[in-house]
Amino acid sequence: MSFVKNAWYTAAWSDEINPGQLFNRTYLNEPVLIYRKQDGTAVAMSDRCPHRFAPLHLGKMVGDSVECPYHGLVFDCSGTCTSNPHGKGSIPKAAVVPTFPIVERHNLLWIWLGDPALADDSKIPDYSFMTDRVRWSTIHGYLHLKVNHDLLIDNLTDLSHAPFVHDVLESRDVCKGEFKVVRKGEVVETINWCPGIEPPPFFKMLKGTAELVDDQGLIDHWQDMRFEPPACMITYYGIARRGSAREQGMDTYNPNFVTPETSTTSHYFWAGSRNFDINDSVVNEFFRKGYGYAFEHQDRPILEAQQQMLGGSDLMSMRPVMLVNDAGSVQVRRVMQDRREAEQASGLHPPSDK
Amino acid sequence: MSFVKNAWYTAAWSDEINPGQLFNRTYLNEPVLIYRKQDGTAVAMSDRCPHRFAPLHLGKMVGDSVECPYHGLVFDCSGTCTSNPHGKGSIPKAAVVPTFPIVERHNLLWIWLGDPALADDSKIPDYSFMTDRVRWSTIHGYLHLKVNHDLLIDNLTDLSHAPFVHDVLESRDVCKGEFKVVRKGEVVETINWCPGIEPPPFFKMLKGTAELVDDQGLIDHWQDMRFEPPACMITYYGIARRGSAREQGMDTYNPNFVTPETSTTSHYFWAGSRNFDINDSVVNEFFRKGYGYAFEHQDRPILEAQQQMLGGSDLMSMRPVMLVNDAGSVQVRRVMQDRREAEQASGLHPPSDK
Amino acid sequence: MSFVKNAWYTAAWSDEINPGQLFNRTYLNEPVLIYRKQDGTAVAMSDRCPHRFAPLHLGKMVGDSVECPYHGLVFDCSGTCTSNPHGKGSIPKAAVVPTFPIVERHNLLWIWLGDPALADDSKIPDYSFMTDRVRWSTIHGYLHLKVNHDLLIDNLTDLSHAPFVHDVLESRDVCKGEFKVVRKGEVVETINWCPGIEPPPFFKMLKGTAELVDDQGLIDHWQDMRFEPPACMITYYGIARRGSAREQGMDTYNPNFVTPETSTTSHYFWAGSRNFDINDSVVNEFFRKGYGYAFEHQDRPILEAQQQMLGGSDLMSMRPVMLVNDAGSVQVRRVMQDRREAEQASGLHPPSDK
Repeated sequence: MSFVKNAWYTAAWSDEINPGQLFNRTYLNEPVLIYRKQDGTAVAMSDRCPHRFAPLHLGKMVGDSVECPYHGLVFDCSGTCTSNPHGKGSIPKAAVVPTFPIVERHNLLWIWLGDPALADDSKIPDYSFMTDRVRWSTIHGYLHLKVNHDLLIDNLTDLSHAPFVHDVLESRDVCKGEFKVVRKGEVVETINWCPGIEPPPFFKMLKGTAELVDDQGLIDHWQDMRFEPPACMITYYGIARRGSAREQGMDTYNPNFVTPETSTTSHYFWAGSRNFDINDSVVNEFFRKGYGYAFEHQDRPILEAQQQMLGGSDLMSMRPVMLVNDAGSVQVRRVMQDRREAEQASGLHPPSDK
Repeated sequence: MSFVKNAWYTAAWSDEINPGQLFNRTYLNEPVLIYRKQDGTAVAMSDRCPHRFAPLHLGKMVGDSVECPYHGLVFDCSGTCTSNPHGKGSIPKAAVVPTFPIVERHNLLWIWLGDPALADDSKIPDYSFMTDRVRWSTIHGYLHLKVNHDLLIDNLTDLSHAPFVHDVLESRDVCKGEFKVVRKGEVVETINWCPGIEPPPFFKMLKGTAELVDDQGLIDHWQDMRFEPPACMITYYGIARRGSAREQGMDTYNPNFVTPETSTTSHYFWAGSRNFDINDSVVNEFFRKGYGYAFEHQDRPILEAQQQMLGGSDLMSMRPVMLVNDAGSVQVRRVMQDRREAEQASGLHPPSDK
Repeated sequence: MSFVKNAWYTAAWSDEINPGQLFNRTYLNEPVLIYRKQDGTAVAMSDRCPHRFAPLHLGKMVGDSVECPYHGLVFDCSGTCTSNPHGKGSIPKAAVVPTFPIVERHNLLWIWLGDPALADDSKIPDYSFMTDRVRWSTIHGYLHLKVNHDLLIDNLTDLSHAPFVHDVLESRDVCKGEFKVVRKGEVVETINWCPGIEPPPFFKMLKGTAELVDDQGLIDHWQDMRFEPPACMITYYGIARRGSAREQGMDTYNPNFVTPETSTTSHYFWAGSRNFDINDSVVNEFFRKGYGYAFEHQDRPILEAQQQMLGGSDLMSMRPVMLVNDAGSVQVRRVMQDRREAEQASGLHPPSDK
């Protein structure tokens, strides 16, 4: 179960990386140091000093450089050792820390752990709605989960779990929606269209819903998902007046990003953007608490127990029973498997594999 | 160190499985769900949903069935999937949860993890004295121990540890008793007969003892053990007036049951039945606290430290020194080894090994 | 990464082993029981009873012997079983606990885990200054660290980390000192001589320093290290009036001893002896707290993080960058590697390997 390496992964929310602070997180088994230069741009490099493998994040910032906490070697933001405080101060050629391309966009830091020559930031998917404060209002959060990334992606790309795991969000009416999977290249979309049902429980708690129901109390509802490799997802979750356009209803775009930490632990970045009550801080808090509760107290116990049940085994090797709604997750696993095979066939050796 | 699988193991005390609740425990490395049907009879099945391996015990009861917490598949008490709430609701043939024979008897639930065709509940040993409230008074308890089941069975089948580990129960006088081992088929009994000694410390604290001692303050004492595979034991522990029948003395039957959880952890079920002061709640409490203390605070530290000392090694591979009182444990290990070899030779493949 | 076994390791500070108490600690993966006989001399033996591998330290002292907590076998201080309380009391020939030579000297207990025939206590290095209360005042401490012993020895034999990890002790001026490594047989010394610098921060806080500085506020400073196998070190750390003898300055001898517990955990014994303010309890406390803080709160986080970074890998297999000050540690690793190879070539099989 190797990782796809040549891809932009989400490393952190922008507000996790504060000026003057050294931040550390492990991605794809690689311990990484992240900090901001004085001009605010982010830098990512291996968190291991090449001298004694002390963690650089325990050191200190010196201008735009970092000083190792153990013996004081200084590395600039290109990973080059620029100062050896000992003796005559000569700097060994090998005193270099591997750096990783990192780009800040859409309120996130995106990191590339693979072959740096292939890191093209035009390939970072467009999540600009997260920073569009005119049309959208967005909240976000982060969770560390003791679950393999593929199991977490399954969870997100098969939203049929919602009415069971998250009964505060969805009713079982969505199980009878019109379901289909659409694949466009490496993008996999699952569409679940539920015309003429009662508003889902979450929307029932929102004040605008009353204005959208027809005289039988029904609305149109959708719960769609879009996946793009390696682990960028959006859940489209909304309601509209029966027969009217989505844009005129209460729509939410809910980004989800998964970055493997190890083979059994994952970083999970979630957000929620809505097109209504944009400047209402009470509604903001309602979304933040509602979503936060769902991921922390409803998904986490099942996902971590599922990981325990599997032990070190891959789900697919256990020959699971398949249901109709798994079609999206199956496509996603194929996309990822193709990527992994292509990387292996290409013979590329990213720095951390050397 | 494989397990004997074709055997009735104790799964839980009856009062651990409450109406309307989903109970989970792992036996022989197999995660198991147990619950009561509406008529009170118990059901046991794999705790893993065959769809995504979510733990069923996090789900909910629906009549006599269980609904998976993750995607809502419903399994009846035969393990058959009876409802798929998604789409057209078709049910994949493979959507079956393995069930395990489970029988409630003598205030315990007995589970069969091996070949179901061999599960004959007439083979459950007779512990009916535990529910005989006319002649006996019985207390019981449960401990989870970080010790291999064979080490725990050694502990129970070699009672010579009692005066050292449990000085509140036994004095060292019992070391000089008449000791013998009697094997009857697969049943191993160790007999320790101590005529004419002072009452053991535990009995000294009981009011009836004063009436049994002779004019030198002596009684007859016994501390016997009966083992029956796979892990059903009774300690017979009592005193009587010198030369008189046991039944006329203060007698206790102390059942002990061990069920492997993993190779290094065990479930330990203990009880204490006595033929005196049957309706005396103070004496009940004295037994409950005395026994509970002995197992929790005296056996547990030594057993768990012993497991640590052995690491992953089997005791016998370490060539331990043997003492005369090990004769019972040695017989027990032989009985169990014969069972394991017979199972392997028979080529039976219980469901959980497939 | 095997251990050097034929060597005197520090087992405990004298005050850790109290009369009448059973003490246990693991050295080189060997669980060891230590206690004092009634005449005060220390005894060390395997902590595992040869009968059932119960830990003897949970038992009790009986005169100069120890009684196993599980079944009451008694072992005298030569490890011989002298009493079997069961049945006729016959003692199996194999009922012997391996003992280890242990010697109390210089306020420490020194243990020999290797071939007992080679244990020559004249080889215990001379740390008699630690108990010389006329010329020296000494404080000491102990830490259990989750770090491999070689990494801890690297830390101690490369003092160039001091101004970075311990800025309360050293300033960066010492980086420009005159550095050399002197090897005398198996003894490795690193010399760092810093003439004419400002007093290091730690000395600035000591009252006597003011009397030693010249009119420019400068002193001579040294920070040397002496290593002797397997893991006996002294840091010489002091200041003197410019151009005058060390003995006339404020001198400290700081012993450090490392004993492997496992391949990833170590026992660290530290002390500090000074030739000034000998009877001043305030200065005593200043040293105890200052050193204790440095080791616990400054070394520990870096060392344990370094171990995490390396995982199970040996540092040298990771091809670390070398700096000039590593020369001492490199020599020390060579000395130890030679020792290990000599032991393996000799075909000696210490008891615990049998």
